[in-house]
Amino acid sequence: MRKIIVQKFGGTSVADTDKIKNVAATVIKEKKNGNDVVVVVSAMGHTTDYLVKMAKDLSPVPSGREMDMLLSTGEGVSIALLAMAIQAAGYDAISFNAMQIGIMTENVHSKARIIDIKTEKLKKNLAEGKIIVVAGFQGVTEDGEITTLGRGGSDTSAVALAAALNAERCDIYTDVEGVYTTDPRIVPTASRLDEISYEEMLELAHAGANVLHPRSVETAKQFNVPLRVRSSFKTDNTGTLILGVDKMEIYKPVAGVASDLSQARIVVCDVPDIPGQAARIFGKLAEENISVDMIIQSYARKVSHTNDIAFTIDAADTDKTMATLNSLKKELNCGEIQLNNEIAKVSIVGAGMIDRPGIASTMFETLAKQGINIKMISTSEIKISCLVEKDDAKKAVKALHDVFGLNSDITAEVKGDLPDV
Amino acid sequence: MRKIIVQKFGGTSVADTDKIKNVAATVIKEKKNGNDVVVVVSAMGHTTDYLVKMAKDLSPVPSGREMDMLLSTGEGVSIALLAMAIQAAGYDAISFNAMQIGIMTENVHSKARIIDIKTEKLKKNLAEGKIIVVAGFQGVTEDGEITTLGRGGSDTSAVALAAALNAERCDIYTDVEGVYTTDPRIVPTASRLDEISYEEMLELAHAGANVLHPRSVETAKQFNVPLRVRSSFKTDNTGTLILGVDKMEIYKPVAGVASDLSQARIVVCDVPDIPGQAARIFGKLAEENISVDMIIQSYARKVSHTNDIAFTIDAADTDKTMATLNSLKKELNCGEIQLNNEIAKVSIVGAGMIDRPGIASTMFETLAKQGINIKMISTSEIKISCLVEKDDAKKAVKALHDVFGLNSDITAEVKGDLPDV
Repeated sequence: MRKIIVQKFGGTSVADTDKIKNVAATVIKEKKNGNDVVVVVSAMGHTTDYLVKMAKDLSPVPSGREMDMLLSTGEGVSIALLAMAIQAAGYDAISFNAMQIGIMTENVHSKARIIDIKTEKLKKNLAEGKIIVVAGFQGVTEDGEITTLGRGGSDTSAVALAAALNAERCDIYTDVEGVYTTDPRIVPTASRLDEISYEEMLELAHAGANVLHPRSVETAKQFNVPLRVRSSFKTDNTGTLILGVDKMEIYKPVAGVASDLSQARIVVCDVPDIPGQAARIFGKLAEENISVDMIIQSYARKVSHTNDIAFTIDAADTDKTMATLNSLKKELNCGEIQLNNEIAKVSIVGAGMIDRPGIASTMFETLAKQGINIKMISTSEIKISCLVEKDDAKKAVKALHDVFGLNSDITAEVKGDLPDV
Repeated sequence: MRKIIVQKFGGTSVADTDKIKNVAATVIKEKKNGNDVVVVVSAMGHTTDYLVKMAKDLSPVPSGREMDMLLSTGEGVSIALLAMAIQAAGYDAISFNAMQIGIMTENVHSKARIIDIKTEKLKKNLAEGKIIVVAGFQGVTEDGEITTLGRGGSDTSAVALAAALNAERCDIYTDVEGVYTTDPRIVPTASRLDEISYEEMLELAHAGANVLHPRSVETAKQFNVPLRVRSSFKTDNTGTLILGVDKMEIYKPVAGVASDLSQARIVVCDVPDIPGQAARIFGKLAEENISVDMIIQSYARKVSHTNDIAFTIDAADTDKTMATLNSLKKELNCGEIQLNNEIAKVSIVGAGMIDRPGIASTMFETLAKQGINIKMISTSEIKISCLVEKDDAKKAVKALHDVFGLNSDITAEVKGDLPDV
């Protein structure tokens, strides 16, 4: 049986008709390898921004349903154009939107999750030798309502299609050459990883590496779909393969170093040490749809019977968070609420740290040697994150990248743009 | 029971967000009148041209299927934006594309005909008090393939929806103020008709009046849907009502005068007078998809036993037609094939001419008085068309408009643009 390869190209890769021709060539190359090909594309370049602007002209808060109707047209354009480009190059191609295929989602607008993908139409057209071009980012409900999948949606579409079709691999083409040991803009000797596990990639993604949206990695992990991140422009480069730990050949204790400068730290001081206080705070924040990342609760002070609860949030949620906490102040009977925007989270990630002691202490020592003060620490099985002063972030990343032996012999090409989602 | 009004706005009326706000106001005005409202919109302004240009960049002959996928996104944008604008003004609205509703068409691309419209979703949402915004120009096949309806498609969508919903009326909003007795650019005293019959409108449309596409008028006639052509910009103007002859209050013998400068005349000379010659010519032209309008065959000459076959075609088909006829020349054993591009068809149209003799002779006399030579004549029950020299067309229209008493007391505002379709 022929193997199925799912490819995904983001908005930058299909930004104009010349780029669409390049994508067609990449798709055809895979077809010529003897594989069946399903291609997922996002909306062209700045289409989404343009559509959002018009919507905002008409309504300060456009309805989620109509916003999804509007945005889904973006991929409608790119799939038809790519199918035409493939046909013009002499190959049979057919485009489908989510409704035509049946990419079924829950009935939620702007961030729906995929429930099921019907494969009948896909399999029929692959059997006829056609290259199939699918609209990413969009779905449809049982009732025929159009939905969108939110940030990183097209990556998720591609991975879910690969899972549904039992594909050999899902290739995510992007404007970076793969997953790096750290951001090459910070450390020019950062090296491209040949392989990384789903778990490591997830931790890196959550830790601020913007290559792939965590949701697509989670889906790939769940269905065990090998995922490859590779360059749209340098197609001879094989990029980085993301797969199950069990399938990896070798791995270093630390796979990568990430920094995230978009967080803010909140400390709720002197919270009386009675049960249910943390639940009160984080329950209320969850109600307001505010995501919390690191959480530290100090030991209760023996005299005052109070403790401090510190946590980090996305800096964009600062105003909303402060307003929510201030409204809780009386109920909590707490002290001051402190805000610090000048922080950064620096993380090391590696599946290899599980059975290798001493990784954490090496991290702390390295930061100490650089004179960097650690404000908070949080750990998972394969990640250690330290909160530091924002101004110390680059120095911390460089030192950690160095101490864990991640430098490449060659200097990575530094790109100004982060990949689109 | 509440009455349903279907409204249709073309691309010019929704060309930008300010214009979309105006359309929303017009829609809401009808809703405030106590009616249920279904609005059909075309793609915004020059969207279609822009999409076609990109397609041509990628492929000299893009596939019809992918072209329909591409073009259908245009209305996807305008329906969502109009729904948002109506919502922002405080009214409940919901947009649907053709696939969501089930505007079922035959499986033909770029010029599909509507077979059926499912009304379940429409009726449910109207019952909930919502204003429904529908994508014009597009349809879907039994197999879920997206189709488009071709020129005048959005008008046809609107009329078909009005028929399916048993609507009180279908209002076609356009950039002219209604149907005129003739083109106001030729005769500034042309008067707007308050009423005109479907049959007259059809003849006028075929005779070169560009207000409505004949297909939409045919559909309105078939289902007896009253159709109103009115201005998007001067909404206090009631426009022209198009309805069945039986429902018209009064009508003049001649309702309007039209001219069509886009035709060319072909004469196939000295065709031997044996059976099947006309079938040979017109069968071959039909095969090549060339539409023929007026056809005149002269009496067979007694000596040579040959006759001349003259007909008119769309001037754009001239090269194709001449090539087709030249390839037939041997088979036909005919003489010279003459081409004349410098002709115009001038027509008078009126349901009232059926039982009023003398209309035709008045037309011929009027043209004669102006020194205008008539090259061909063709008649239907409610239309008389004369082929004249192109240079004589305006003079002919003015004289006929005058002799049949069609002048208005007021001078019509002359517009430079023909309405979009």
